[in-house]
Amino acid sequence: MAEPAKKTENITLDNVAEQKYDLITRRLQEVLGGDTIRAILAEGRAPKCYWGSAPTGRPHIGYFVPLTKIADFLRAGVAVTILLADVHAFLDNLKAPLELVAHRTKYYKHILKSVFTSLGIPTNKLRFVEGSSYQLTREYNMDNYRLCAIVTEHDAKKAGAEVVKQVESPLLSGLLYPGMQALDEQYLGCDFQFGGVDQRKIFTFAELYLPRLGYAKRAHLMNPMVPGLGGGKMSSSDPDSKIDFLEAPAEVRRKIKRAFCEEGNVQENGVLSFVEAVLIPISQLRIERLHGETGADADEGASAVGTQTPFALEGAPEGTVFSISRPEKYGGSLHYQAFADLKRDFADKKIHPGDLKTAVADAIVQLLEPIRKTFEESQEWQEVEKLAYPPPPQPEKKKKKKVYHPPPPGKGKNARADPAVATNGGDSVPASSEEAHSTAEAAKQQT
Amino acid sequence: MAEPAKKTENITLDNVAEQKYDLITRRLQEVLGGDTIRAILAEGRAPKCYWGSAPTGRPHIGYFVPLTKIADFLRAGVAVTILLADVHAFLDNLKAPLELVAHRTKYYKHILKSVFTSLGIPTNKLRFVEGSSYQLTREYNMDNYRLCAIVTEHDAKKAGAEVVKQVESPLLSGLLYPGMQALDEQYLGCDFQFGGVDQRKIFTFAELYLPRLGYAKRAHLMNPMVPGLGGGKMSSSDPDSKIDFLEAPAEVRRKIKRAFCEEGNVQENGVLSFVEAVLIPISQLRIERLHGETGADADEGASAVGTQTPFALEGAPEGTVFSISRPEKYGGSLHYQAFADLKRDFADKKIHPGDLKTAVADAIVQLLEPIRKTFEESQEWQEVEKLAYPPPPQPEKKKKKKVYHPPPPGKGKNARADPAVATNGGDSVPASSEEAHSTAEAAKQQT
Repeated sequence: MAEPAKKTENITLDNVAEQKYDLITRRLQEVLGGDTIRAILAEGRAPKCYWGSAPTGRPHIGYFVPLTKIADFLRAGVAVTILLADVHAFLDNLKAPLELVAHRTKYYKHILKSVFTSLGIPTNKLRFVEGSSYQLTREYNMDNYRLCAIVTEHDAKKAGAEVVKQVESPLLSGLLYPGMQALDEQYLGCDFQFGGVDQRKIFTFAELYLPRLGYAKRAHLMNPMVPGLGGGKMSSSDPDSKIDFLEAPAEVRRKIKRAFCEEGNVQENGVLSFVEAVLIPISQLRIERLHGETGADADEGASAVGTQTPFALEGAPEGTVFSISRPEKYGGSLHYQAFADLKRDFADKKIHPGDLKTAVADAIVQLLEPIRKTFEESQEWQEVEKLAYPPPPQPEKKKKKKVYHPPPPGKGKNARADPAVATNGGDSVPASSEEAHSTAEAAKQQT
Repeated sequence: MAEPAKKTENITLDNVAEQKYDLITRRLQEVLGGDTIRAILAEGRAPKCYWGSAPTGRPHIGYFVPLTKIADFLRAGVAVTILLADVHAFLDNLKAPLELVAHRTKYYKHILKSVFTSLGIPTNKLRFVEGSSYQLTREYNMDNYRLCAIVTEHDAKKAGAEVVKQVESPLLSGLLYPGMQALDEQYLGCDFQFGGVDQRKIFTFAELYLPRLGYAKRAHLMNPMVPGLGGGKMSSSDPDSKIDFLEAPAEVRRKIKRAFCEEGNVQENGVLSFVEAVLIPISQLRIERLHGETGADADEGASAVGTQTPFALEGAPEGTVFSISRPEKYGGSLHYQAFADLKRDFADKKIHPGDLKTAVADAIVQLLEPIRKTFEESQEWQEVEKLAYPPPPQPEKKKKKKVYHPPPPGKGKNARADPAVATNGGDSVPASSEEAHSTAEAAKQQT
């Protein structure tokens, strides 16, 4: 379980402001500069937050982790900017033309909006900004150059150590990312940046360097890292750990069944972690709303799509945030008011992994159902999806069907292994690129 | 003496074109991609050249070395672009505000134009471009990012090894310079870039990477390196080796007298090298013009200012490119038709350093005379000079004269040593910055 957020309480707040601060910082692993946020709340203003994601691959349900936290921000009245880092996405995979990145950016917007809507979170304080809208301007680039003239290679490398893909021959772009992410704070006008705790060095880099350009130092709020369903970091590169937002129920159940979830092991357990980081927070949100605690917006929940009950079975005791269905002969269903109890029971092998998996799969199917429905009802989104993720090119032999003398199968196979085919991709996206784990994604997205 | 230029003669040219090619490549140490230039000349077109200089400090007469070569280009009908790398200059010395750099850029233009005019070289095919006019555009920056996404740290570092200031904690800007210099070739639309042979790795880097962005590989023409008057590389950071373009005759003579010029030593001899790289080429130019060889422009020499005779004494034999005045009792004056003979005599100790120095000082005074005159007649240039090189700030005690209780001298001195004072310089330029040797200058300027 995450360490409680480190709070700085030098500024006394009234009850309302204190509640907002608690909502903003709950379940975080670390808060740097919390006093800044308290000061803003003390003045009755709305803090401004920035969170970035590079629209490289296809977003998976790991995104529920930051989005659940962003839901807290929005409920606390925070003005949230989601940066869709299209320039980063393009640079990260030069094979994907800018046009494709533009489609993916739109796809991301559809998904992210749809998630908030499905959770009943009003999005009137949420804005999307594309990196290309300001990262190529004269002013930004002059600042980027200025930064490069004071940042050492050593500091840039250290800042990116945890989030920039570590390869044998590092690219210059990897050294630029930390500085650009720092400038984003200034250009997006945020009071704090939010991300996974893997961003910590990038965040402290920004705290060090922005003031040297004459800009304000921002606060930084960090989510704990959540292992993927495969056991490690949830990532697009591991198909076993990846469940798409539009995944069909049967496929969700199949993937959860295959997920790593060892009996008694609570450390590297992606299934259990998903309960802690996503399902219980959503249950809490729903319970709070049932109690009339609707955060900053009175109409919170009004436009929610799909089931809005906590992940508790019918007849569960008041305050249950997670239930596990189990036949009476094995001890009957289990109901938890807190994650700690669930974790303890799992560690004590009082819960069989199969039962936990079934409960989690049921919950995910329920979470995805309204998103799938929105997709199926939106002609526009469906068009975007086709353009953003075109089917992989046909195998070589089919592409060459007009050739009078097609090469023998062996030769065709060799041709596919030729790296020139992949790098010359141009308009078509090789199947592998869709699954590619990307630097920018790692740098921007916390799962 | 420089190695003869490596010529690629795969393309046969008519006499006129061959003469132009010879003029373009004479006295160079190395030519990469000469065939490209030959191909352009074969089509009867004018090749386009780019040479860059960062307006950091104050230009010194070492600039005569590239400018003498650029005179050849202009005479051969080459369209020359001189990049005044103001963004680089600003980045190189963040203490100097952009406004100061803008004034220095203007000052550089005055000097450079005045040098060509003094040599009688028409400047209708010469254009000045400021880096800031395109290096901050959307298109250029996207290309810069694209480049950073394919260039490894290793390659960038290797490319800059000879021209980027090597410090203990290298800055990111040093890694960006090679890529920017490559992009400059594309954005300035040149057929070849010219520079000192110390730029070789930057040039081959550009040859490697521009095609990877889909841009043409450019040719590269390299001047030999010329030692400064102090014996090493001529540099603004060594006041002994630096003679200003506006230096008074007495000061020129004093500095040349102090220059390192050891009897018999022809290797590290800045005085002798200046004869080879500047004075003899200018003599040759003047002799050619006297013979009616006026290059691409029939009116070459028409607008020349000041004496236009070769650096030969009256009564010197036909074809003399350099004379040394000497009393009869020491063997009488010496006249040379070729540098090789002068070099041999100096190596054989047949020439006393004092006599060589006097001849060189006379020549420099003659070269600078029309430039000084132009300056003294130009109100505009004088204004620019004042703004570009303001006097160093007054000592601390004078600045604080309005304080009732001025600090004791000891304390005032400590205050000046405080780094905060230097970085907050703002409008005033610390005396040291004027003399500072700069990365960008080293990267851009060949002396």
